[in-house]
Amino acid sequence: MNVAGGEGGLTPAEVFGISDEAWMRHALGEAQAAFDEDEVPVGAVIVCGGRMIASAHNQRETLNDPTAHAEILAMTQAADAMQSWRLIDCTLYVTLEPCPMCAGAIVQARIPRVVYGTTDPKGGACHTLYNITNDPRLNHQAEVVGGVLQAECRDILQAFFGRQRALGKK
Amino acid sequence: MNVAGGEGGLTPAEVFGISDEAWMRHALGEAQAAFDEDEVPVGAVIVCGGRMIASAHNQRETLNDPTAHAEILAMTQAADAMQSWRLIDCTLYVTLEPCPMCAGAIVQARIPRVVYGTTDPKGGACHTLYNITNDPRLNHQAEVVGGVLQAECRDILQAFFGRQRALGKK
Repeated sequence: MNVAGGEGGLTPAEVFGISDEAWMRHALGEAQAAFDEDEVPVGAVIVCGGRMIASAHNQRETLNDPTAHAEILAMTQAADAMQSWRLIDCTLYVTLEPCPMCAGAIVQARIPRVVYGTTDPKGGACHTLYNITNDPRLNHQAEVVGGVLQAECRDILQAFFGRQRALGKK
Repeated sequence: MNVAGGEGGLTPAEVFGISDEAWMRHALGEAQAAFDEDEVPVGAVIVCGGRMIASAHNQRETLNDPTAHAEILAMTQAADAMQSWRLIDCTLYVTLEPCPMCAGAIVQARIPRVVYGTTDPKGGACHTLYNITNDPRLNHQAEVVGGVLQAECRDILQAFFGRQRALGKK
């Protein structure tokens, strides 16, 4: 599923010779780290100029912070690395379609390109429930591609919630 | 303007004897601190059980962090104070209608009540462009009251942007 592809030119990943799938695999590694910490397994990385400048996973429970989604932590890291709140020329890879908070943060950070793994029927805000990342009323729009390593990104979430149910936690 | 008022019972502010206006004045003090730091002047406080547990202002430029809106910083502070990401029984006071990022964070934090000062025609996500804080498809809805100390909350923003224009910054 290439929900909103490029304009026919090379993507930044193609220019730098590393595919979206390869970067998404890094994000999946972060999702696994979240799984191992008993957190909802979502991971994110941010790439700029072919270099990974941020890598994070959901840590809401660990940090006791409602804003500690993988994307928010990665954006804060990336802005620190860039010494700027404007994440121009960056691509955000995230295993799950961003929620309204994270989609809004993508707009705030002026991220030009977002690649996600699996859609979120309950909270997705790039395509599913909202199109916050592509709203002409807001002051920035991002290109958003969904469905990269979709099955793996979905399966780790399903395994997590299956385990939670088995443990009677949900 | 009481956009979405309570159900006829006492508000938490009334129970504890301190009015919404009094808490908003604290948030306005934070907005003034942002103004003095050359930041877009928005301030926020979070109140729980009649006690202010968080107080912050927009620090996007100072922290070089696209997520450093007043509300996000206040929610992280409040969660630290509560030792929980669930900000139940809290009221968030903010001088400007929350943007999609901050409205999404309010949903993530399960904040039951939000009071804001002035609407944001370009990005407001509680009433103006979106109703993220009252969307039955999401897993939490907040009561949102707008227009408390509206003129003062608007005037400090207009003064800031007027100054920016005079300095040729915007």
